[in-house]
Amino acid sequence: MPHLNLEYSDNLRDLKVDVLLLRLNHALVGSGQFAEELDIKSRAQAFAQYRVGTAPGERAFAHVRLAILSGRSEQVKQQLASSLLEVLHEAIPVQAGLDIQLCVEVLDIDRAPYAKLRLPG
Amino acid sequence: MPHLNLEYSDNLRDLKVDVLLLRLNHALVGSGQFAEELDIKSRAQAFAQYRVGTAPGERAFAHVRLAILSGRSEQVKQQLASSLLEVLHEAIPVQAGLDIQLCVEVLDIDRAPYAKLRLPG
Amino acid sequence: MPHLNLEYSDNLRDLKVDVLLLRLNHALVGSGQFAEELDIKSRAQAFAQYRVGTAPGERAFAHVRLAILSGRSEQVKQQLASSLLEVLHEAIPVQAGLDIQLCVEVLDIDRAPYAKLRLPG
Repeated sequence: MPHLNLEYSDNLRDLKVDVLLLRLNHALVGSGQFAEELDIKSRAQAFAQYRVGTAPGERAFAHVRLAILSGRSEQVKQQLASSLLEVLHEAIPVQAGLDIQLCVEVLDIDRAPYAKLRLPG
Repeated sequence: MPHLNLEYSDNLRDLKVDVLLLRLNHALVGSGQFAEELDIKSRAQAFAQYRVGTAPGERAFAHVRLAILSGRSEQVKQQLASSLLEVLHEAIPVQAGLDIQLCVEVLDIDRAPYAKLRLPG
Repeated sequence: MPHLNLEYSDNLRDLKVDVLLLRLNHALVGSGQFAEELDIKSRAQAFAQYRVGTAPGERAFAHVRLAILSGRSEQVKQQLASSLLEVLHEAIPVQAGLDIQLCVEVLDIDRAPYAKLRLPG
């Protein structure tokens, strides 16, 4: 914990995903909410099969799901969402002819049954 | 919002995913629950690595996760699930020798920390 | 239900995913919590795009999300998480130079709007 999943439509062709993931992780470290930088596990997936709405016209999305252990306040979650959205926005510029939606969702991981093991190499 | 994720085993070989996603989106628009068709962001992923149960025999699944902002009634969610399952059923015929499971799950997105930005092209 | 998603970084190169999924399913069957082995739908996804933390050094993760219909006790969920983590641990050995994190999360599927259909072949 935290776990971050970035899902995006693959028509965001120039997205530098490695850079973006690192920036998202830095934003999380910078929030002061997480004890160890090592704990942040972020991954990204491009979707080749997607459909935004029903009307014609090219559309794109990038969606971050941040899952954190339950117990944080609404205010903290809003700040996390806001800072991650800012990082997305910096990484994904407006593109002529492409309607882009950026979203950030923060959800709780039920703390009681969360199990974890670290195997240092 | 809403976000729809379709996950399916890749032994559903003849699935026309583009058509299916558009039909799912039309079912969501038709529900009258969502203000703008543009808001519906659906994506699909075929899994090459999957295992249904423990017994031998070829099995398949298609699973829709619909994530919507919290606050809708149980009845509305049941109607959404039911209409999406119907669309799945129409798109995925019975196949001899293949045991198929179709599922629809509706889950809430915590409304407070949901952040979104639209970049019209 | 249950639905199991295994997400892992693709630097876990020797992972035998087929074997692992079957063992995870056997652990679920062995828990006695699920009426039919057929109901267990597990799938795995390797991520080529991931970033653990912000510091340099090679790191890996394997994360199981188990989604079950709501209503089970905290104790049952903890036992499920613990047995799945054990299976992960057996399948993923310590590797020199690679810092690996294994995690198991158990989450509820809202029972009311869950819709399902089985098409026996």
